[in-house]
Amino acid sequence: MSTDPLRRCIAQLSRFPGVGERTATRLAYWLLRQDGDVAREIGAALSALPDQVRRCGRCFNVAASDPCPTCSNPRRSSTIVCVVERPQDISAIEETGDFSGRYHVLDGAISPLDGIGPEQLRIRELLARLRPEQVEEVLIATDPDVEGDATALYLAGLLKPSGIRVTRLAHGIAVGTELEYANRSSVARALANRREL
Amino acid sequence: MSTDPLRRCIAQLSRFPGVGERTATRLAYWLLRQDGDVAREIGAALSALPDQVRRCGRCFNVAASDPCPTCSNPRRSSTIVCVVERPQDISAIEETGDFSGRYHVLDGAISPLDGIGPEQLRIRELLARLRPEQVEEVLIATDPDVEGDATALYLAGLLKPSGIRVTRLAHGIAVGTELEYANRSSVARALANRREL
Repeated sequence: MSTDPLRRCIAQLSRFPGVGERTATRLAYWLLRQDGDVAREIGAALSALPDQVRRCGRCFNVAASDPCPTCSNPRRSSTIVCVVERPQDISAIEETGDFSGRYHVLDGAISPLDGIGPEQLRIRELLARLRPEQVEEVLIATDPDVEGDATALYLAGLLKPSGIRVTRLAHGIAVGTELEYANRSSVARALANRREL
Repeated sequence: MSTDPLRRCIAQLSRFPGVGERTATRLAYWLLRQDGDVAREIGAALSALPDQVRRCGRCFNVAASDPCPTCSNPRRSSTIVCVVERPQDISAIEETGDFSGRYHVLDGAISPLDGIGPEQLRIRELLARLRPEQVEEVLIATDPDVEGDATALYLAGLLKPSGIRVTRLAHGIAVGTELEYANRSSVARALANRREL
């Protein structure tokens, strides 16, 4: 690491994924043109992150406490667990207010091309929760793409023999989208998942 | 500002130019997946920047001291001042090792479309240096684009009446570029600036 504070700042900013040395240089010089408090405030928020935000040892969501508020909330049922790829996905489900179970963050999806197999995901940790939390249903909310589908199928194959109900979020035409403007893969899903009326 | 440390971190990262909330969210979650030291080291480098790097009150270069090492170096001639748009430009000239004068950072170039006129640049500060530093030549190293050229012409008009020599960095075909592959504007400059042999 350089001893020149500006070089060091550029080197540190370059650690972010997708931020090259050119971008880091641009950001550092931008900081120098701002009031000193801007750099200090951004720096303080970053420095505080690892101490103030941890991951729940049970569901691997990010939270200020471990276990997280959801896992330690007695009003949330442990019999249904919603499996997501990333912590960010949880808020999308929470915002509906329609789910009162718990979560489990896989930290990714099966992707052989990226060298991510089941053993790189938090599947072992999911299996370890089933019995102590008396899980009856695993609702798989991985993304509707090749990796998310592969992960869903893999989990279904793994869980069904133990008699656990395995469900998957419905994918189809988004509410509010006119059929004419729906993207092709959503329509394809809507056809494949059509329901009896 | 949010009291949730993760939201606060995302809000702070969004202050960077070109970093929207989506990118900031991606970066913050990336940080959470790293060892805690990554966030702490990046944060510390940012926080330290404003205290450790200031701008020279004479030439407006960024430096650890004011006046900067160049302005306070008795072996650097004050009779020739190289005018650049940005602090970053200085290192390009320093790397040649062929310039032993001083610098002056304008903090931009004249650009009526962006609302930047001469009064937004550090031209007043440049004029104030001429007499006390006994400047004999001002070498204009602004970019070879519309704004940089306009700034160079403006400065030339301003300085020449006082008998100061005003020069401009040569622009033409870059060394190492074959004529066949040189870009059109470089060739145009090379023609306009052709020299007697």
